[in-house]
Amino acid sequence: MSKTWQVYLSGEIHTDWRDQIEAGTKAAGLPVVFSAPVTDHGSSDACGADILGAEDNEFWYDNKGAKVNSIRTSTLIKGADIVVVRFGDKYKQWNAAFDAGYAAALNKPIITLHDPDLRHPLKEVDGAALAWAQEPAQVVRVLKYVIDGTL
Amino acid sequence: MSKTWQVYLSGEIHTDWRDQIEAGTKAAGLPVVFSAPVTDHGSSDACGADILGAEDNEFWYDNKGAKVNSIRTSTLIKGADIVVVRFGDKYKQWNAAFDAGYAAALNKPIITLHDPDLRHPLKEVDGAALAWAQEPAQVVRVLKYVIDGTL
Amino acid sequence: MSKTWQVYLSGEIHTDWRDQIEAGTKAAGLPVVFSAPVTDHGSSDACGADILGAEDNEFWYDNKGAKVNSIRTSTLIKGADIVVVRFGDKYKQWNAAFDAGYAAALNKPIITLHDPDLRHPLKEVDGAALAWAQEPAQVVRVLKYVIDGTL
Amino acid sequence: MSKTWQVYLSGEIHTDWRDQIEAGTKAAGLPVVFSAPVTDHGSSDACGADILGAEDNEFWYDNKGAKVNSIRTSTLIKGADIVVVRFGDKYKQWNAAFDAGYAAALNKPIITLHDPDLRHPLKEVDGAALAWAQEPAQVVRVLKYVIDGTL
Amino acid sequence: MSKTWQVYLSGEIHTDWRDQIEAGTKAAGLPVVFSAPVTDHGSSDACGADILGAEDNEFWYDNKGAKVNSIRTSTLIKGADIVVVRFGDKYKQWNAAFDAGYAAALNKPIITLHDPDLRHPLKEVDGAALAWAQEPAQVVRVLKYVIDGTL
Amino acid sequence: MSKTWQVYLSGEIHTDWRDQIEAGTKAAGLPVVFSAPVTDHGSSDACGADILGAEDNEFWYDNKGAKVNSIRTSTLIKGADIVVVRFGDKYKQWNAAFDAGYAAALNKPIITLHDPDLRHPLKEVDGAALAWAQEPAQVVRVLKYVIDGTL
Amino acid sequence: MSKTWQVYLSGEIHTDWRDQIEAGTKAAGLPVVFSAPVTDHGSSDACGADILGAEDNEFWYDNKGAKVNSIRTSTLIKGADIVVVRFGDKYKQWNAAFDAGYAAALNKPIITLHDPDLRHPLKEVDGAALAWAQEPAQVVRVLKYVIDGTL
Amino acid sequence: MSKTWQVYLSGEIHTDWRDQIEAGTKAAGLPVVFSAPVTDHGSSDACGADILGAEDNEFWYDNKGAKVNSIRTSTLIKGADIVVVRFGDKYKQWNAAFDAGYAAALNKPIITLHDPDLRHPLKEVDGAALAWAQEPAQVVRVLKYVIDGTL
Repeated sequence: MSKTWQVYLSGEIHTDWRDQIEAGTKAAGLPVVFSAPVTDHGSSDACGADILGAEDNEFWYDNKGAKVNSIRTSTLIKGADIVVVRFGDKYKQWNAAFDAGYAAALNKPIITLHDPDLRHPLKEVDGAALAWAQEPAQVVRVLKYVIDGTL
Repeated sequence: MSKTWQVYLSGEIHTDWRDQIEAGTKAAGLPVVFSAPVTDHGSSDACGADILGAEDNEFWYDNKGAKVNSIRTSTLIKGADIVVVRFGDKYKQWNAAFDAGYAAALNKPIITLHDPDLRHPLKEVDGAALAWAQEPAQVVRVLKYVIDGTL
Repeated sequence: MSKTWQVYLSGEIHTDWRDQIEAGTKAAGLPVVFSAPVTDHGSSDACGADILGAEDNEFWYDNKGAKVNSIRTSTLIKGADIVVVRFGDKYKQWNAAFDAGYAAALNKPIITLHDPDLRHPLKEVDGAALAWAQEPAQVVRVLKYVIDGTL
Repeated sequence: MSKTWQVYLSGEIHTDWRDQIEAGTKAAGLPVVFSAPVTDHGSSDACGADILGAEDNEFWYDNKGAKVNSIRTSTLIKGADIVVVRFGDKYKQWNAAFDAGYAAALNKPIITLHDPDLRHPLKEVDGAALAWAQEPAQVVRVLKYVIDGTL
Repeated sequence: MSKTWQVYLSGEIHTDWRDQIEAGTKAAGLPVVFSAPVTDHGSSDACGADILGAEDNEFWYDNKGAKVNSIRTSTLIKGADIVVVRFGDKYKQWNAAFDAGYAAALNKPIITLHDPDLRHPLKEVDGAALAWAQEPAQVVRVLKYVIDGTL
Repeated sequence: MSKTWQVYLSGEIHTDWRDQIEAGTKAAGLPVVFSAPVTDHGSSDACGADILGAEDNEFWYDNKGAKVNSIRTSTLIKGADIVVVRFGDKYKQWNAAFDAGYAAALNKPIITLHDPDLRHPLKEVDGAALAWAQEPAQVVRVLKYVIDGTL
Repeated sequence: MSKTWQVYLSGEIHTDWRDQIEAGTKAAGLPVVFSAPVTDHGSSDACGADILGAEDNEFWYDNKGAKVNSIRTSTLIKGADIVVVRFGDKYKQWNAAFDAGYAAALNKPIITLHDPDLRHPLKEVDGAALAWAQEPAQVVRVLKYVIDGTL
Repeated sequence: MSKTWQVYLSGEIHTDWRDQIEAGTKAAGLPVVFSAPVTDHGSSDACGADILGAEDNEFWYDNKGAKVNSIRTSTLIKGADIVVVRFGDKYKQWNAAFDAGYAAALNKPIITLHDPDLRHPLKEVDGAALAWAQEPAQVVRVLKYVIDGTL
């Protein structure tokens, strides 16, 4: 039985890039299981206080949520064969860069996905990546090539 | 096929917290396999001498049993994605804190489960945890959120 | 130049067992550098809020302090050749058991130091240790034997 | 001979926060060796092409430089006991978040240093840190407490 | 689906102890997959030269065979949850002690199986083990207890 | 269920040695899943620029392709139980030697496959291998012996 | 300053092979620090009970001693660059083979030292070694070559 | 005291590139300790048989020598901060590519040093490197920049 590849899709949660990659990969018939952070922004912010108890202090409100999210994200990154990190044009997105550093220290192959105008501020992240894609379709093609060996 | 999560339930063996978490998780339809130490107190104490030979000396009687138990516990913690550690209001429970330290050194996500009045003596353990729950139902909700992404 | 041994002294902070071990080791002329958690109870509790900002919520007050302390303790345990863990007759001492678990997962040699009446609740910790001492002088003798090879 | 602590100072290169921390640490007489990325912005951008050959393509110009810089930064982070990560109010600073992720995967203690208004976008990074400081003087106090045990 | 345990049976190849353990485990209905070195003595000695080419020199004849065998044994020990090491009353059996050391360095739980009269020369191996059994039936009981939690 | 072995076939892509090994292994009924680099020379060279964008500079053209290939190769080597490395009589084949070094550092069993006249230049690679085969049929026999224990 | 090599001398304690290697290495002016188990047989057997308390049961008497010894031996092997393992013509010497396995799993270079008539029973140990010497003087020459590069 | 950098110089032994790098580094006053394989070709080939006993069979003659050399090379690469790998225009040089793979799997920064006409066959090695230099003087400049931060 051939290998099922685990691919973690880190980063931007406000556009449909994950859907595009998943649809393209499915269309290509590739044996891939995708995972990702929780992409519902509201839930992602609220999860800590909502489940574990309210917090007046904003720092601890955020801290509680971030840690609950990291139970998911750190586990999935550790289990991934490949980590795709997407940077969009909005927000600070430090969590995406954090994930890239985490993956790099674990010697995981990283694919970055971002527009050319983010080239300079992302140079350290791209420097740790094995591929830089500008479009989701390119990520699908990289996965296809890497997994079944055809262009 | 989506990931099956391995969750180790460490600590207190005299209340039904494990049953509550397992029932809640099952009701939520989550793909989780739970594991735990042997929770029958008598067997857990007696296993070493009962299987491997009687001991007059109390230290070695306990030592033999503790080591047989650790074949199970160390293996299951090493294979766990998440370690939940429960502290109750009785006994020394140093084994639970030991498990938490073991999990922390392996960089496993830890969820603690205990009443607020244990806050101060558990501060080092909580400091190494990603979530502190007071009720089993909160652990179920954390698992639900972490695994299927919904609150 | 012969090896300098790094020995971490974890656990109880209310008796002079560390002083006894350090004095005995010095008298024996052994090349040992000892390290330990901060043993001033007040400072250890207050450090987080005192340095990083006050907290109204008791949990976060403790959490902040515990994490600052763990910068010290986790670093020193990771650098230790041997970890000695002392349990006294007061307090919960879950931090000591946590340290023992942390050391065990890193495959560090552990020496426990405690009275016989703690035998049963400490069986898992003793089961992970390579030596159980009842008196600080025994720890000194173990260090002497391990380092210079003489009884 | 007591331990010399290795502290890596990651992030912002346009204010004097590193000087403040180093001066404060020296004044406190602490045994710390600091390391950092190259903080001369021009050199940091130009190093790849300047040493290894010019590049017309901006991506490869940046890529070459980023990789030369990572020879330094990855080596120093791997050798660090503690990683301090500073975020300022300008630029994307994805390299700082990348370093934090890298350090987190290696289980290194992280101290973040940033203003309160960056709280929300830095929640994942702060969630992986053991301390959040708002001023360099607080970092000095954390180091002092961690190393010599006094507030 | 509950865990299937991987158990490696190292050591003596001239008695039926493996059969006894496997039969007892099967009778108990335990989810265990056993693995072992090649137990046909003739094949084990001859495999290198027989497959890869004859050798006049006895050292290289043995060396070739030992290395081919180690492709199997090192892979299976690395994948094992538990390593059982059996010492009989004949031969040098240094390969069994080597396997025990290999497993110990990987932090694998070790169960030794040998008669009491080998106690003294095996003290270092037993010192690294979590259980010492004298009969195969005891190993079965340890597995039963460890896996399904019943005596 | 017995173990399925993961075998990575590194090196020469211009002869049918992989087919011979796979056919022989299948004929022997062995539970092996083989993996390999992309063996279509043209695709392997072109993949980077073809998917991720054209490059004028030959170095970056090659660099882009090599990195995309390494997403596949590094992942598969890390997941392999055994790495077979084939050297032919043409080309530099530094990638094959690189793979051997990579596997050696990960402590993976290595089988080399090459003619006797490459003995001297391959001595370091053979020195790190557990078997040297001259013919694909010998590799099949090694796999057969290692997996089912029969010559 | 050139590297000081750490060499652990494991095994036989009844002949002067360690002295020969140390004298030869000193005469050659090599920067080597040697370490070894405690070589006083009586102390090595008695250390556990003598320091930590008498034992009636022979198994625990030996077990206590073996574990105290392993505090020394496991620490020194983990810190060694090279492990030399000597097998003599007497005793079971399973501890030596155990040390070899331990070193092999840690990927440490191993040099064996034994007479040709132990060739067959030591084939697995020799198969994991990088050199087999028959005389201490050969070990000195290997160290000289490895360290200063001259025959 | 600032860090002393360990730099391993792998590969070609027939030109004076190591001398150039060492002289340039010394002239720049950098705190670097260099290490390398034995660069005397005759000794490197003969060391195994010369020290450990003659071999008629050419394969074992080479094998013995290669393994003695690997005691040195694997130890030094494991201890290196940076690995420089030089490829010349003669010989197969598979040992250099092997060293590069070994370093890559250990996540060590790699600098390659070779002429442009080796670009294509070295693409996998260059793909794993953080810098490609064509002249030894460029390696010196990379070290200078990486260590003291100046171009």
